[in-house]
Amino acid sequence: MNAGAPDARIDADRLWGDLMALAEITDPQRPYTRRSFSPTFLRGRAWLADRYRDAGLTVRVDAAGNLIGRRAGSAADAPAIVVGSHSDSVPGGGRFDGIAGVVAGLEVARALADGGIALAHPLEVVDFLAEEPSEFGVSCIGSRAVAGLLDAGHLAMTAPGGETLAQAIERTGGDPARIGAARRADIGAFLELHIEQGPVLEARGIDLGIVTAIVGITRVEIRFAGEAAHAGTVPMNARRDAAVAAAEAVLAVRDLARGFADRGEGHFVATCGVCEILPNASNVVPGQARLVVDARSERAEAMSAFVARLEAALQAIARGNDVALAAFRIVSGNDPAACDAALQRVLQESAERAGYSSLRMASGAGHDAAYVAHVAPAAMLFVPSRGGRSHCPEEWTGQAELAAGAQVMLEAVRRIDGAPEPVSRAAPRSVTRNSLRSGREAGNP
Amino acid sequence: MNAGAPDARIDADRLWGDLMALAEITDPQRPYTRRSFSPTFLRGRAWLADRYRDAGLTVRVDAAGNLIGRRAGSAADAPAIVVGSHSDSVPGGGRFDGIAGVVAGLEVARALADGGIALAHPLEVVDFLAEEPSEFGVSCIGSRAVAGLLDAGHLAMTAPGGETLAQAIERTGGDPARIGAARRADIGAFLELHIEQGPVLEARGIDLGIVTAIVGITRVEIRFAGEAAHAGTVPMNARRDAAVAAAEAVLAVRDLARGFADRGEGHFVATCGVCEILPNASNVVPGQARLVVDARSERAEAMSAFVARLEAALQAIARGNDVALAAFRIVSGNDPAACDAALQRVLQESAERAGYSSLRMASGAGHDAAYVAHVAPAAMLFVPSRGGRSHCPEEWTGQAELAAGAQVMLEAVRRIDGAPEPVSRAAPRSVTRNSLRSGREAGNP
Repeated sequence: MNAGAPDARIDADRLWGDLMALAEITDPQRPYTRRSFSPTFLRGRAWLADRYRDAGLTVRVDAAGNLIGRRAGSAADAPAIVVGSHSDSVPGGGRFDGIAGVVAGLEVARALADGGIALAHPLEVVDFLAEEPSEFGVSCIGSRAVAGLLDAGHLAMTAPGGETLAQAIERTGGDPARIGAARRADIGAFLELHIEQGPVLEARGIDLGIVTAIVGITRVEIRFAGEAAHAGTVPMNARRDAAVAAAEAVLAVRDLARGFADRGEGHFVATCGVCEILPNASNVVPGQARLVVDARSERAEAMSAFVARLEAALQAIARGNDVALAAFRIVSGNDPAACDAALQRVLQESAERAGYSSLRMASGAGHDAAYVAHVAPAAMLFVPSRGGRSHCPEEWTGQAELAAGAQVMLEAVRRIDGAPEPVSRAAPRSVTRNSLRSGREAGNP
Repeated sequence: MNAGAPDARIDADRLWGDLMALAEITDPQRPYTRRSFSPTFLRGRAWLADRYRDAGLTVRVDAAGNLIGRRAGSAADAPAIVVGSHSDSVPGGGRFDGIAGVVAGLEVARALADGGIALAHPLEVVDFLAEEPSEFGVSCIGSRAVAGLLDAGHLAMTAPGGETLAQAIERTGGDPARIGAARRADIGAFLELHIEQGPVLEARGIDLGIVTAIVGITRVEIRFAGEAAHAGTVPMNARRDAAVAAAEAVLAVRDLARGFADRGEGHFVATCGVCEILPNASNVVPGQARLVVDARSERAEAMSAFVARLEAALQAIARGNDVALAAFRIVSGNDPAACDAALQRVLQESAERAGYSSLRMASGAGHDAAYVAHVAPAAMLFVPSRGGRSHCPEEWTGQAELAAGAQVMLEAVRRIDGAPEPVSRAAPRSVTRNSLRSGREAGNP
């Protein structure tokens, strides 16, 4: 951005108003819930498409069901600068996870329009479809497709009601038969603003987080099969109690994860967020137990070691309790993704220019940016989360904190647009050079 | 019974046919399930009432919804000899628990009729309402009422759909407004045949168990309240994970129960059969966890000590995991019940006369007999359970084993009826003398 360029400011009240309006489009029985593919979600998207149009953006839904608002650039065939996040939520989640990044992107486009600022590059605001784990058992559906990684196997997955993912994508306005068309080779830079969802920024009194890497996430389904029996008549030493084995497994997951975290291998966490036993009756020794482990690491080697040690620990637990380890199944797994180094620098310089402190940090949460990084330089900006709370109604970021993040996004977009060295030349990790180059070299400003 | 009395024999095939016919009245999606108050349960009862009538019994439903078939006695005002058990089941249970004792009682009545044998005492066959833990959170509903222990608090309890227990009892033909009328003061002796539901008789090759005492059962609801949080962003050492606390609690329950069992304080077991976490999503650190502990002891002192030590252990677990022990609630509790010594002798002599081996043993399962023992001399006869399995579809007792039990029940009923010393004079434990005497002394044969 040139020193003489016109000034542009985020309108903090307008940004906040949009955020709260979209947050209130929720399942009224369980605020704040806007599950992907639900009627509530589709209402939120209709509201969002209207705001895109109000901001002068051209609205489309791509083949994967991503909602995109586009502002043309002045240079012919320039790759797009893309900003965005997602508008779906977990059940009983908060008001910020996802939509903060979507409405911040919208506000960036409006601030540019208000300032009469033309960019050389097209600017796109994207609401990626279904970032949170969906009823189909897969997350980051829209950004996976942008990376060319949503395949026929995913599209055939079904929700409990029997609908396939392909049918659900079609309901959102996507075109699953042409899913390959959603893959992007024309993105010059991707920036995602998101709430931190952890306690670090608040605890350290820092305005913004500049993400260095996004953890890889591995989910493992564990099933123990013991023997259902009468809770009164089988002596303690003759039981095959699947719930006792599951309890030992929950503690093994915790202890192993603590070990990896303490060993200085970077951010490492693991959680048993799903725990179910059968028949779940007070007077029956549980015969079956099911857990889902969610493990996250910024180092792929640490994750491999964790999974191997966990399986060995569970085999020992099964033997010790005379039950079978009936399943140890990797449900999903993806590698950690490094954020683009040049974009990290742009974010840091933008924060400095706007007068905000910043911290380089890993993201313990998965994000759409991790998938977009497969096909474009990508980076993320965190705003603080009060008390580190997220995925719950207490999730909170202050109005001024969110506006600070949006202002830095605006600065960064202008910097990327005006950079003498096109940012898109920097090779992102885990992307082939072919996918990087296609449709981009001719168009760089 | 006089040596010259006419012979009477159980019809093993008829008994077995009834058992299997009633067992097949099940939720077809989940054999074998006949949950109390369900349409399936009411179909089973209609079938049973028809069999009562076929056997010449007079059928009525008492105020508490117990289904009673009665055969008149020849002596005026004689107290009743009552045999029976229950026809409801756990979800996904077996074909024997409960109904074995009901159809054995029915077969005793039929064998007496076939043999043209009149008794001085009335004989009643009872199907007690809802012995298993019901959707209302209470078990042994019918036998509690027979003991005068089903109160207004119980009647106001609701199932998840909102129905009160009073409304449900009314649906079965009971009269909850007159629940006190179900209390019995006219029972001279109660005998319950039941499957052992444990491995002891089979393992030792013994035909029948004569129960010395029925364990007391205490159920405790435990709730931990931590803090729901994002599974990726909160470091392991900053979590308030309710599922981890619950896992430690499951192991504490097991370890404490093992200690009591090993200490030679008689039969002692404890089980976490219910375990639920919220929000139960793979990417959310669980904020809430709920367990129900079922603990059983034949010594009331051991139970008190267990409950006190469990609460102390849970407080320590809550502190160690930075969560709150939000509930430690005794949901239900009853003292162990001793079986009537005179009736135990009658059962043993009857087994000897019929040529079967028997073993005195405690019952680790709760039974309706434990409640009836509050108002009448009560005893129980166990038949073997294959592999000790119960509360599961694999629950099994052989046809000959069941017939042996029914034959001994028949012998015992005739012995009680003909005893020179009326059995009803023997004072049962935990019954006031007043309740024992009323309506009985005048009628003893």
